Order: sequence, then C-alpha cells, then structure tokens
Amino acid sequence: MTQVGTRTAGGPVDATAVEQYHKHGFLLLPPAFLGEDALSRVAAVLPSALERDEVTVRSVYGVHQTEPVIAELARLPRLLHAVEQILGDGVYVHQSKINLKASFSGDQWEWHQDYVYWLQNDGIQRPDLVNVAVFLDDVTEFNGPLTFIRGSHAEGLLAGTDADGMPLGYEDAPAWVATLTADEKFQVKPEIIEKLASRNGLVSPKGPAGSVLFFHPNILHCSAPNISPFRRAVLIFVYNSVSNSPHAVPSPRPPFLSEPDVIALQPLQSGTHTR
Amino acid sequence: MTQVGTRTAGGPVDATAVEQYHKHGFLLLPPAFLGEDALSRVAAVLPSALERDEVTVRSVYGVHQTEPVIAELARLPRLLHAVEQILGDGVYVHQSKINLKASFSGDQWEWHQDYVYWLQNDGIQRPDLVNVAVFLDDVTEFNGPLTFIRGSHAEGLLAGTDADGMPLGYEDAPAWVATLTADEKFQVKPEIIEKLASRNGLVSPKGPAGSVLFFHPNILHCSAPNISPFRRAVLIFVYNSVSNSPHAVPSPRPPFLSEPDVIALQPLQSGTHTR
Repeated sequence: MTQVGTRTAGGPVDATAVEQYHKHGFLLLPPAFLGEDALSRVAAVLPSALERDEVTVRSVYGVHQTEPVIAELARLPRLLHAVEQILGDGVYVHQSKINLKASFSGDQWEWHQDYVYWLQNDGIQRPDLVNVAVFLDDVTEFNGPLTFIRGSHAEGLLAGTDADGMPLGYEDAPAWVATLTADEKFQVKPEIIEKLASRNGLVSPKGPAGSVLFFHPNILHCSAPNISPFRRAVLIFVYNSVSNSPHAVPSPRPPFLSEPDVIALQPLQSGTHTR
Repeated sequence: MTQVGTRTAGGPVDATAVEQYHKHGFLLLPPAFLGEDALSRVAAVLPSALERDEVTVRSVYGVHQTEPVIAELARLPRLLHAVEQILGDGVYVHQSKINLKASFSGDQWEWHQDYVYWLQNDGIQRPDLVNVAVFLDDVTEFNGPLTFIRGSHAEGLLAGTDADGMPLGYEDAPAWVATLTADEKFQVKPEIIEKLASRNGLVSPKGPAGSVLFFHPNILHCSAPNISPFRRAVLIFVYNSVSNSPHAVPSPRPPFLSEPDVIALQPLQSGTHTR
C-alpha cells in the first residue's frame, strides 16, 4: 500500500471520476475508454469461450485462465491502471466470468452484495476488490441491466447474521456449487433494501457495447431477467489487491473460482497481442 | 359508428395525441389528466378490492362490478370521453382488473397481444377496444413496467396459427382459468418479436402514480418481474365499443371476465360520487 500516491495520481481516469466511484460505489466509462479493438478481440473468442461440449452455457468462469485474449484484456494498460487507481495497489484477477443473459429468458439475480462471498468462501479479508464489467452487448433498460442502490457500498456488510454473528446460511457449510446459483445465500433483509433504496435511489448504468462499469464489492445490486429479444452478455473481472490475498479456508473453491496465483499484473506491451 | 365525427372532435385529448395513439399504439397522459381526487378515491378502496378472505391477491378482476368507486372512475367524464375519442363510438367496460405487482417478486408477463384472447374466448369480432391503465403507484424502469414494441399493433394478429388457421393452442379448448396465467397461450414466434423490436424499437412508458396509459389491444407487450423494493399496482379498464359486443362462444367466460351488460356508459354527474 506504499504506492497509493503514485498509483492514484495521473492515471487514465481523472480524479473526479475516481471520487465518484468512491462516493456512489460505481463508475461507468464509455466504449472509447477501452477502444474498439479490445471489444472486437473479445467478441471474436466469445463463441468458443461460451461453448462446452457443443452446448452454449449461461455463465462461464475462469475465462482469464482459459482464453489468452481475455487474459490480455485484463492487462490492457488503461484498464489495469484505472483499477490500480481505484484500489491504490498492485492488482490481479481473483475471478472472471462471462454472464450471457440470453434473450427472452436470462436469469434474474436477487439483491446481494458480492464481497461476503469472497470473504466467506475464499478468505479474502478486506473489501479491497473491484468488479469491472465490460459490456459485450448494448445494455438497455430492457435486457436486464445491473441495478444498484447508489452509495450502498458505504453500509458495509448487510447480510443477515445468526446469533453467533455468522452470516445467514453459512452454518450449512455448502459446497462451492451453491455459491454460483441465482438464489442468494447471504440475504439482505427486504426492509433494509427498501430503506436504502428509498433514501439513496436505484440506478441502472446503461450504455453501448464496449462500455466499462466499475462497481464496488459491497454495493447492493440485482438484475431482472432479460425479457427482451436482445442478448445481454457481460464480461466481468474481479480484481483484487495483491496485499489482500486469500487466507486459508476449510473448503477452498477450485482455481477457476478463486485464482491461486497472486502476482501483480503487468501492463500488456503494445504489439504483443495474441493473433 | 355514426357518431365518429362528433365523438372524436373537441374531446379532452387533443387531435395530435389521438393521432399518436393510432400511430404508436399507445398514449401516456400525466396525472393531471385524471386529477388527484380520482387517484385518492381508488387508493382508498384498494386494500378491500385486493383482499379475499384476508389474503392479499396478486390480481383481481371485475373491480368495475364490485367496487362502486372504480365503476365511477370508469365513467369519469374526461376519461370516458377520451376513450370515445379513440374508439369513435359509445363504450362500456368489457373487463377490469387490478394487477398488484408486489415488490421483490411480482410476476413476469411474456410477450403477447391482448386482442386474440377477447376474440377467441369472448367472441369479440373486431379489435375496437382500448386498454386504459391507471398507475396506482409510480411506474419506473425498476418495478416491472409494461414494455411495448412501438407500432406493433399495426401488424394485426401475430400469434401462431395451426393448419386450420386457428391460433396455436386454441385446439385444446381450455377452461377459462387458463386465460389468466402469465404463461401465454397464443404465442408469437421469437423471430417475429425480434424483427419488430429491431425495426420499431422498445418503449416502456413510465410516470408517477395517477398517470394514464392507453394502449391498443393488438400492441405486442410484456413486463419484467418487479425486482425492486417498490410495489407497482395498476388498474386496467378494457373498454369496448358498444357496436362490437361479444358473440356466442362454445364456453363463455364468467361475467367478471366478460361483461354481459353491453350498455354505453354515461358520464358521471359531478357531485354524485360514492362517499
């Protein structure tokens, strides 16, 4: 954490935008931030990334481990430096996934915070992570956008706790598979959601394919199903600070859910893309 | 239909707005159109209208038959004359309902057109009806608004038909109960929905409680579930032209789904509200 000063100043995102992120818990940047080239590289590998045994899957994890083009995107200098500005540290990708919200169907995700899963399942001690969602399709009000309660990240951990102070549901010690379903294990009470939404307001960041949405691991969010005829695919990198690496847990999750290699990413050199 | 001229001219809705309705298949008017008084009267009877045996129901039909305050709203002069302007005829309420989209849950309704149900189930020969949705709560992008394909009413009947030219599913002669579920019986092919949505665009009319949304019985529409912490209750009147009364059908639906009394409504006299 000694490099906070140099990492946060003079990066690709201006200071006001970084402040907005910390205030509201999210930040949306237009497609120009990544550039057209980055988006088209990912679009080109999307079919292979999403196909398993000739079946198109709904979500796929560990894409930074299996797809060189996606590993390179995680190291795109502008993106990597923006993440370092936000976290004030060297960073690596703890988890990555593509959520393919198919037209006419795509699953609803209930209200939840992300960080509690990384704390409980992966032993990550501080919420010094950031979600980066790269829109692979246009995201509109109609195709199930992420919906946030503005500023709710500032409330800290909101999931219900049992008498021993453990988050609700943790006493069941489920297999890691249970961490991937749309039914949330760490539920926040409806009255808390209603109170925060009434006070702070709801917001659904929308934008064309290639837009980049940074959001805090403690922001309360959900997404409606995609009832529209248009797909809504999103690539998500969960960057973690290298000084916040996972601690030992009783039942570690597999590497495609919890990256074991905690090594600060280095910016991709220009001209070294996979062809 | 002899009175078209006098009914469409000089009414409470200006000619441009009526044109917009016929072009796009819907028209949204602000709360000032009905007035605060009308909304608060309905709000006052909402709990009793929605409660059956001490259980709050999700939808309730026939409210113009059971709730005097709602029967009176259907005859509110501005509203009644606006409907007469749109249909160019004397009108009555063929069906009414309150859809209570509860917070955190309220059902999703798949893409469908309304008119085919009134044709097939109730023997209504022409699509000379109009839906009037009175927003009982604020309708936002977050609480499952109605979503239309702009102008799709102009395409006529789009539901799949079998070899005999009958709409898909009709051959099963279901009980009327089947007409009330969120699973649509008369399905429009996904490729048709996608083509029309791409060409014409999607739109979700939104507005504060008291807003009034007129929409055509043949407009393609759907609504997402209500994942937000805020209720989205809507009162819907389906007005029909008196010259378009139901014909005999093999299995008539009960009166609360298909009004048997086809008598042109008369405007409510001022000062005659139920107290």
